[in-house]
Amino acid sequence: MSSENYSFPAKTLKAVRGANRKSSKSWLQEGLPRLLDRIMESYEEQGWIEHIEGKDLPSKEAGVRILEDFFAVIFPGYYVGAALTESNTRQYVEEKLQSIHNSLVKEVERSLKYLCRRVLRCPEDFCRERAEAVVTELLEEIPKIRTILRGDVQAAYDGDPAARSTDEVILSYPAIYAITTYRIAHELYLREVPFIPRIMTEYAHSITGIDIHPGAKIGKDFFIDHGTGVVIGETTEIGDNVRIYQGVTLGAMSFPKDAKGKLVRGVKRHPTVQDNVIIYSGSTILGGKTVIGKDTVIGGNVWITSSIPSGMQVLIAPPQQVYRTTRPNTENWAGYGI
Amino acid sequence: MSSENYSFPAKTLKAVRGANRKSSKSWLQEGLPRLLDRIMESYEEQGWIEHIEGKDLPSKEAGVRILEDFFAVIFPGYYVGAALTESNTRQYVEEKLQSIHNSLVKEVERSLKYLCRRVLRCPEDFCRERAEAVVTELLEEIPKIRTILRGDVQAAYDGDPAARSTDEVILSYPAIYAITTYRIAHELYLREVPFIPRIMTEYAHSITGIDIHPGAKIGKDFFIDHGTGVVIGETTEIGDNVRIYQGVTLGAMSFPKDAKGKLVRGVKRHPTVQDNVIIYSGSTILGGKTVIGKDTVIGGNVWITSSIPSGMQVLIAPPQQVYRTTRPNTENWAGYGI
Amino acid sequence: MSSENYSFPAKTLKAVRGANRKSSKSWLQEGLPRLLDRIMESYEEQGWIEHIEGKDLPSKEAGVRILEDFFAVIFPGYYVGAALTESNTRQYVEEKLQSIHNSLVKEVERSLKYLCRRVLRCPEDFCRERAEAVVTELLEEIPKIRTILRGDVQAAYDGDPAARSTDEVILSYPAIYAITTYRIAHELYLREVPFIPRIMTEYAHSITGIDIHPGAKIGKDFFIDHGTGVVIGETTEIGDNVRIYQGVTLGAMSFPKDAKGKLVRGVKRHPTVQDNVIIYSGSTILGGKTVIGKDTVIGGNVWITSSIPSGMQVLIAPPQQVYRTTRPNTENWAGYGI
Repeated sequence: MSSENYSFPAKTLKAVRGANRKSSKSWLQEGLPRLLDRIMESYEEQGWIEHIEGKDLPSKEAGVRILEDFFAVIFPGYYVGAALTESNTRQYVEEKLQSIHNSLVKEVERSLKYLCRRVLRCPEDFCRERAEAVVTELLEEIPKIRTILRGDVQAAYDGDPAARSTDEVILSYPAIYAITTYRIAHELYLREVPFIPRIMTEYAHSITGIDIHPGAKIGKDFFIDHGTGVVIGETTEIGDNVRIYQGVTLGAMSFPKDAKGKLVRGVKRHPTVQDNVIIYSGSTILGGKTVIGKDTVIGGNVWITSSIPSGMQVLIAPPQQVYRTTRPNTENWAGYGI
Repeated sequence: MSSENYSFPAKTLKAVRGANRKSSKSWLQEGLPRLLDRIMESYEEQGWIEHIEGKDLPSKEAGVRILEDFFAVIFPGYYVGAALTESNTRQYVEEKLQSIHNSLVKEVERSLKYLCRRVLRCPEDFCRERAEAVVTELLEEIPKIRTILRGDVQAAYDGDPAARSTDEVILSYPAIYAITTYRIAHELYLREVPFIPRIMTEYAHSITGIDIHPGAKIGKDFFIDHGTGVVIGETTEIGDNVRIYQGVTLGAMSFPKDAKGKLVRGVKRHPTVQDNVIIYSGSTILGGKTVIGKDTVIGGNVWITSSIPSGMQVLIAPPQQVYRTTRPNTENWAGYGI
Repeated sequence: MSSENYSFPAKTLKAVRGANRKSSKSWLQEGLPRLLDRIMESYEEQGWIEHIEGKDLPSKEAGVRILEDFFAVIFPGYYVGAALTESNTRQYVEEKLQSIHNSLVKEVERSLKYLCRRVLRCPEDFCRERAEAVVTELLEEIPKIRTILRGDVQAAYDGDPAARSTDEVILSYPAIYAITTYRIAHELYLREVPFIPRIMTEYAHSITGIDIHPGAKIGKDFFIDHGTGVVIGETTEIGDNVRIYQGVTLGAMSFPKDAKGKLVRGVKRHPTVQDNVIIYSGSTILGGKTVIGKDTVIGGNVWITSSIPSGMQVLIAPPQQVYRTTRPNTENWAGYGI
């Protein structure tokens, strides 16, 4: 079989028949310099998508390496080639912490200099010293973060019949990658570090399909099963022992604007989910005033825009669906509404 | 706590008790050559999933590096470790453009040779010269592409209350990665380059969860918020100032077939979305004849298979949902329709 | 334009005005050792998220490289820089098979030692010999796996009007990446190898957004178009010539628990999909007893929790939607239920 229906490319055929001959040598010598002029002019228009002569912006690559080092310290022995032993662990962790410290201080300093240039007038050395303060505070939180993640890992094992062990959860579950990254990024967000929290969570988003804004507040024993398509907005609040499934949106319902018609930023526009709630796949919960009460279970594909009391179940009614016994020839069966 | 329910692996236990001893040495000496014979025979069946003695196919790795170089030129200073200055920028961009030129001419030439072998009879040197023409045309488009992307970045900032700055948008938003990749791939698609456009957009798809076919036509000031699960089909047309959210499908409704029962390829089967439309999360819009009129707002989870006039709002009716106050013991609450 | 609404960071401003000066040197000398003590204590609590003095766990990186080698053997010539020829192919494949053998035996041995420590009492050398047996069995399956994947590639080409050739499918379609990885991981799952099957499929999940548990049973000629958000659960059974679209969940409906309130693992809780079924985007099919009969077509966004006979079409009824001609000022149009 294979591919006998390759479509005939008209422009290319025309080019074959014509004598559309351009020498590459002349373009590199003549065309490229002219293009460079045009591109440099494009940069000088200063249209906000070039970053030249500004202080450095933080590096995405550095952020990813810093995350790897955090994972190595938080879940020691899981992500490395060699086994850890009682005798080599302390030195291993020390090296990781020094690496995080050096790298992250540099990246946070870059981000703070961005703030300084735009918003504040800073004394000399402020950005470096503030960066060191922020980073050491975050590192000091590691034991507490580990305790919380211990609960997230247990929640994953308890909540998923497919999990064979907590080791399997740590080694392979996207939820753990997303939640760990969020808990680190959140500490930086709380300390008003620009860029880096969002770089970290968007990296986790690209790896897992789980989109958690670093500003969200998430309690203990949190589990996201499968995960692809989950969106947790910036001002979401989630309690303890909450479990959600793929495709769940905790989103905003309205986007208030100021008198000039510009978006108001920072306002609570995402829901609050209380303790012990379960939200099954594909459900959408919207609105800053929406509260899902304790112990409530939200079924799959549910649509919620106002608060639900505690101890409820919310299920979709059996949806109206059309059942036919024959399939039309043109496979236009998907023509709903006909 | 942890994992006390580890299931007992029956086959492995049986193997422990049996004497299922195979020496690895004998397999590598005897079994491996025999397996190689079988695999080589499998290749010789020529069943369309091996590529031996054909001209090179384009390399996915090369495509990814080319994309990185494009991003470095389009958003200078954002993705590199060192800061750009007025004095070093021109040389930096020149090196990137030369790198793109060399690499992409090679990859496009490989793809065109594929066409030549299958469909056309090409004069000697045609593929190389056509590749150079295509690549220089694309590079010459860079200033225009930058202007358009400037609008896309502004649209993201204007459309998302969580965005703190356009710099944050460029550094971390999946939308920018997906849209930039699409705009580059689309130029190659228009010039009938095989493989490479789709390799590029599928790479962006794997990074962002956003699936845009390079054949789609997308206007200015385009923003996709969150993005995971968005599907924009090959023959979709999108106007200016359009904003869509996660999980939106702009898809096909029917797949016409020819007299032999094979799919007809190339026909318009995806919708048209006019200027200033907003489509909220989870909505599905299907069909080549479906037009969403200017200024219309499509709510979340809407299902559309026929055209909508301008200036409309389409919302789902408050869905029928069942509310219960107690949760059954077996947690069979998710048993809808009971 | 750009970003004139940068919010004012209160804590940072306070830090600027205060004299919150901490010297990094003293933290590295004094604070870091104290933090190290606290982290080492945290490890000694033995709270199941550290892995020290245990036998090695399998390495995710090694799993990814092993997958790359499998792809190189299964689809020779597609993923490498240099072209394969008749004369160099056998040696190329031999090197890949040796590489897979060495690497995978090591990783499987590590995983089996995990089993030995937890569950079994193993004779000496058992884990190594069992690992070699498992890996050689898997390698011997390669010709058969290739035959099956040939059908999956053809199914993708036949099922997607956007596909220009089967070569394009192999080079760029996420479905092929996910299905190939699943078919390899499934062989390891059947042989009760811990961790590695799930590591492989979760890696494919992160690349493609397609979540297939390695325990699922999937027949021939299987195609997933677009793919983002697809979930195929551990005990799903899928027949031949089945096609599914993005956002489809083949999931569990209830999670039985034992007398102690712990999840029962291993029970069939995911649906069965028979031959020739098509399931369009966004549909959810739940339950271990749910069977979708042969030749049935499930439309988009359908919700199914009980069996469907053969030869049916199931479509959503035209959903109730509200159509308005004006858009309110506050853009609260998304306020459903008002």
